[in-house]
Amino acid sequence: MKISKEKTAELILNHHSFLQVGHVHADGDDIGSLCALHRVLHAMGKKSDMIVCDGVPERFRFLEETRYIRQTVPDHKEYDMIVFTDLSNIERGGGLDYPPVRSLCIDHHVSNTEYADFLYLRPDYAATAEMLAELFLEYHMPLDEESCNALYMGIATDSGFFKYSNTSEHTLCTAGKLVGMGARPELISSHLDAVTLRSMKVYQRVLSTLHFSSQGKIGWASMDQVSMDMEGDNSDAYVEIPRRVQGVELAVLLKYESPSKTRVSFRSQQYVDVSELASQFGGGGHVRAAGCTVQKSIEETEHLIGQAAAAVI
Amino acid sequence: MKISKEKTAELILNHHSFLQVGHVHADGDDIGSLCALHRVLHAMGKKSDMIVCDGVPERFRFLEETRYIRQTVPDHKEYDMIVFTDLSNIERGGGLDYPPVRSLCIDHHVSNTEYADFLYLRPDYAATAEMLAELFLEYHMPLDEESCNALYMGIATDSGFFKYSNTSEHTLCTAGKLVGMGARPELISSHLDAVTLRSMKVYQRVLSTLHFSSQGKIGWASMDQVSMDMEGDNSDAYVEIPRRVQGVELAVLLKYESPSKTRVSFRSQQYVDVSELASQFGGGGHVRAAGCTVQKSIEETEHLIGQAAAAVI
Repeated sequence: MKISKEKTAELILNHHSFLQVGHVHADGDDIGSLCALHRVLHAMGKKSDMIVCDGVPERFRFLEETRYIRQTVPDHKEYDMIVFTDLSNIERGGGLDYPPVRSLCIDHHVSNTEYADFLYLRPDYAATAEMLAELFLEYHMPLDEESCNALYMGIATDSGFFKYSNTSEHTLCTAGKLVGMGARPELISSHLDAVTLRSMKVYQRVLSTLHFSSQGKIGWASMDQVSMDMEGDNSDAYVEIPRRVQGVELAVLLKYESPSKTRVSFRSQQYVDVSELASQFGGGGHVRAAGCTVQKSIEETEHLIGQAAAAVI
Repeated sequence: MKISKEKTAELILNHHSFLQVGHVHADGDDIGSLCALHRVLHAMGKKSDMIVCDGVPERFRFLEETRYIRQTVPDHKEYDMIVFTDLSNIERGGGLDYPPVRSLCIDHHVSNTEYADFLYLRPDYAATAEMLAELFLEYHMPLDEESCNALYMGIATDSGFFKYSNTSEHTLCTAGKLVGMGARPELISSHLDAVTLRSMKVYQRVLSTLHFSSQGKIGWASMDQVSMDMEGDNSDAYVEIPRRVQGVELAVLLKYESPSKTRVSFRSQQYVDVSELASQFGGGGHVRAAGCTVQKSIEETEHLIGQAAAAVI
């Protein structure tokens, strides 16, 4: 059942022991939302446990609250409510064994499958953290500096540091209020922008593969077996290498899976519908970001896709 | 004479023909401020000419208003006011021959030398564009989408896309209001973030020189003659390569000047006073950003500086 912000506040105020669930491959919005809600609940004298079943990515661990995030549901504990934050579908929780109590989902994904008993959904908001910040501020729930930092991190990461088209007046003003209450943009960004030596090396490897076709309108890069072994988990970041080059409309990143299997990430800038392009190879996605998997080597995949790409550029 | 926002609005409203002056090596805040004020003045039926004596950097030219920016003061034109935006001192104007009329300076640099007849100064604001946006909004001056984009660009660039410590609640909320009135963050950032193929190649060259000393606390990179020929004008950007690596406290970029002359850029994160380090080699600068020039080859310079750097790390 879809519910309002008022009903969401009421559910939070009227329950006492929460199981908070984040999603697999947690991003900054999910971790920020989990941590902020956790601190607010505890400051209100309530109990809460947080779960992210595959753990907290290293780069978010500068938030001290992340140390309380568990990977499994604790035994022998009683909860009276489950809260899913930033999960568009139940599978993203990682298939945990949930206690038999009512659930609330707070999410901003338009694709939310309405799996929870109560769903507070705002697809017009850039981040789940933006929804939570508004809720906490409007209902005067106790927000301290660490919670403000966590929420700022959520909003900043999901809006690409206020660079994406989901950045609205509300997004920026909400982030502003958090800074007014103690969030420190420079602290958050210095932690998030730090890169590991390993990712620098992979960046160098991928950059060395950069090349172009169709008069510079298609930019290609690839991650071989070594690059994938080093940074396969974070491979999406490397499609930025061809995408950022001036004049590139269609960026393609080819990723090694096996000698005869290649994953492909597509990004476009203005006019190429990459979801349509990906669907030609059994894949899918969004208009500006899509992908597919091809049962060929990297070289053969580039040849195959190159012909289809040249036709739509 | 320092003046208030009210008096600034009054001066703008009571004059009719303006000479707007920006600074040499114009940045996003200066170009955004010039263009927005120019459009607002024209929308109010006033006349105005804009000058940036060394021209508009390529990456800001996506703003159509920049096409009206001149490099010299037009002959035989009458002005009743000069407006300097974002100039901390008169020298930054480039030594133009100004008409003999009163001048107004709108600036946010704490170091402003009070050279103008009237100075509206807000050192607590992240950008001159933040001051102008507030002024335009408060006095209901006519702001269209292009002006909002120009002001957003100014605020976003001077606050490092809301990552620097000068990002206040006011900075974010002002940017938010501009988005509400038509500014498009994704349009601005896609133009500003686009990199040329040449700078990608130089990035790759500099990245290939990255190495470390003092257990990874000092990060080194260098630009040889080829890199300097390609991107010497923009060489400051490449000190980011060693600086961003996790664990690096002191970043050093060595830049070829001649076979026996090397320029050095230093950056530090937390505790190394690089202005002190640079002064050991006849250079200087700020605590976290400084530089010097050494009459030796790149290799010899690294050896020399390496010893002094190891002593302070």
